[in-house]
Amino acid sequence: MASSTTVKGCMQKIADGSVHTPAGFKAAGLHAKVKRKRKDLGVIVSDVPASAAAVYTLNQIQAAPLDVTRESIAAGDTLRAVVANSGQANACMGKVGVADAYDMRDQTAQALNLDPLDVAVASTGTIGERLQMENILPGIAQLQPETNRAAANAFAESILTTDTCTKETCYATEIDGKTVHIGGVAKGSGMIHPNMATMLSFVTTDANIAPDYLQQALSEITDRTYNRITIDGDTSTNDMVLTLANGQAGHEPLHPGHPDWTHFMQTLECVCIEQSKQIARDGEGATKLVEVNVQGAPTDEDAGKIAKQIVGSDLLKTAVFGTDGNWGRVICAIGYSGVTIDPETIDIAIGPYMTLSQSEPVDFSEEAVTAHLQQDEVFIDVNLHLGDGTGKAWGCDLTYDYVRINAGYRT
Amino acid sequence: MASSTTVKGCMQKIADGSVHTPAGFKAAGLHAKVKRKRKDLGVIVSDVPASAAAVYTLNQIQAAPLDVTRESIAAGDTLRAVVANSGQANACMGKVGVADAYDMRDQTAQALNLDPLDVAVASTGTIGERLQMENILPGIAQLQPETNRAAANAFAESILTTDTCTKETCYATEIDGKTVHIGGVAKGSGMIHPNMATMLSFVTTDANIAPDYLQQALSEITDRTYNRITIDGDTSTNDMVLTLANGQAGHEPLHPGHPDWTHFMQTLECVCIEQSKQIARDGEGATKLVEVNVQGAPTDEDAGKIAKQIVGSDLLKTAVFGTDGNWGRVICAIGYSGVTIDPETIDIAIGPYMTLSQSEPVDFSEEAVTAHLQQDEVFIDVNLHLGDGTGKAWGCDLTYDYVRINAGYRT
Repeated sequence: MASSTTVKGCMQKIADGSVHTPAGFKAAGLHAKVKRKRKDLGVIVSDVPASAAAVYTLNQIQAAPLDVTRESIAAGDTLRAVVANSGQANACMGKVGVADAYDMRDQTAQALNLDPLDVAVASTGTIGERLQMENILPGIAQLQPETNRAAANAFAESILTTDTCTKETCYATEIDGKTVHIGGVAKGSGMIHPNMATMLSFVTTDANIAPDYLQQALSEITDRTYNRITIDGDTSTNDMVLTLANGQAGHEPLHPGHPDWTHFMQTLECVCIEQSKQIARDGEGATKLVEVNVQGAPTDEDAGKIAKQIVGSDLLKTAVFGTDGNWGRVICAIGYSGVTIDPETIDIAIGPYMTLSQSEPVDFSEEAVTAHLQQDEVFIDVNLHLGDGTGKAWGCDLTYDYVRINAGYRT
Repeated sequence: MASSTTVKGCMQKIADGSVHTPAGFKAAGLHAKVKRKRKDLGVIVSDVPASAAAVYTLNQIQAAPLDVTRESIAAGDTLRAVVANSGQANACMGKVGVADAYDMRDQTAQALNLDPLDVAVASTGTIGERLQMENILPGIAQLQPETNRAAANAFAESILTTDTCTKETCYATEIDGKTVHIGGVAKGSGMIHPNMATMLSFVTTDANIAPDYLQQALSEITDRTYNRITIDGDTSTNDMVLTLANGQAGHEPLHPGHPDWTHFMQTLECVCIEQSKQIARDGEGATKLVEVNVQGAPTDEDAGKIAKQIVGSDLLKTAVFGTDGNWGRVICAIGYSGVTIDPETIDIAIGPYMTLSQSEPVDFSEEAVTAHLQQDEVFIDVNLHLGDGTGKAWGCDLTYDYVRINAGYRT
């Protein structure tokens, strides 16, 4: 019952692809000395104005950079660049935080010879600490955007916080017979809970698509990708998915009636799923990626809600860490998910092993289930036998290291 | 800004009081060999039929004993006894689980010479394992209920699972000039999240009160006591609060218009708050009790919702464990609580130390805040400056031991 990302039709994964792979994009990242050692400042630039679409955290406490980015996009629905820093989140800093976010935007526009309204701003890190502008502003002046893997990787590094690895991906498809690339870079490890967006993700594409259609595509796909990951149930104040489409692939404009619209949607979804799984797998302290697949729910939305509730249960997450096939914790989470279920018709499988059938316990091999739980990808499948709704969610195990990392993150 | 349970008017705490303290109640507990060493089976008995009221978990997956208890109460709104076991939860066992719960009830009725419909049943422990009836049924026959502290304590021990200590309390008040006692025994350490009930609690009283008024009182008070604790966000399948009032104090029947109704309500609330705090303090792996106090919310319900969200945040809980005065995690939880707030008017204090005022960071002594967080009771106070709503919630820190306990609970 395990599943994987199916690559359909003409879509293909680009090895070593990233945000620089779509035509007409550059990136850069460097160490501006906000953090002790690691890179902490980066930029992505499009050679020409790119259609822009974004989804933001639903947390009512939103960091200053989000408001500045909203303003830039609202000014014309296009962007040329996004600047990002890690280390401090520039959240809950009052008026000084808003001024700092504007200063980051202005300095980036000046360095790249752009209008400030062509620039988006993102920050990630500790809430309630002021940005080290004395390091960030000179750092922006030193950014040298380039079109190569090293430059994209430097950007990917520059947005990391407690992440242990960079998160990059790229897929290609065909539209009007032309090759179109969609590349993504993301960060996210803690304070991750699927309520849009709960991490940073930047997606670039050389597709030709108007901002409205891009926004429609991003919002729809976000609901079943980034919004389906959870690390710790905490919805961040800062985070967003920003997509830039600069049209450099040279095909006719995309719209839902275009014959290759599905190619675009499938490819964008693939990028978003892969980024989501990379974030879940690198959850703070995580040793395993957990994928929960719910079928037979009344609706797809219900299935997604239950899948998220299961993958977010601290008890299930510790059981996965302890390789304990404790299906009782799965059914418990189903019961409090808020979706109306029939308590008598539930199937639960851990990996390929059925543990509960029509709500009656099944004899299963504890050893086989434990062996599955020892792998670094764990699958839990649920069938409610109520309808046709299906949905997935992704998370990770809860380990000693999650506690260690978060008991000492700020200090 | 720290707070404590205020003992008002004629109410007083009874040292060493428990469920045996109200007149006409007996208890017993023993080791029936369901668990390896610790007591695992117990009973509380009233000398005369007692008005019964109960609140149950809202999890849609409910264990068989809950249905049996509902049936007993529905048959006449009174009970004479409740039998409880720990070790196995008798949840998700299909038809055999229902039969086992009825057998527990019948055996208890026979042993105590009661009608089966006078007996309630409760189980707590691992989901999905069959009750060891070969040990439980003979155990029931051996229970010898008595009216003394040792017997009540044996019952309190017999319902523990991962708890590290018994949870008992008793308060007295005056009604019509007569002394009335309310005693409570509870268990609960993991799979605790405030959605009624998420643990077991048994409350006995010699007050004279009809079942309907008792249910009204219990439901109202549960909303701001047991429903305001969280250990891990998981709502159990099994749990309930059951209250028995046998009228042996000999006063006129209580009702909301009775001049001493407030005495009764305050005393019952005191018992429920104390039981709730005992459960939160003994959360799996916990080293600290955390009390969150929200003021200035639009309504009391909103305040309670925000308080629960803060105290349930894994990030806040790990920060408390790490004695890190990370108020950013508090405001983050406020922002995703689902209650509409004004992001610009929030005050946050950790212990007596203000860290955020009108949403602007305040200079505070990190050392002083850390010293407060090193105590075994931690207070977080929030003022939203939006209205008159107030509410509290209780929880604990998230520690290495929570992971250790739950990575290995079942096996």
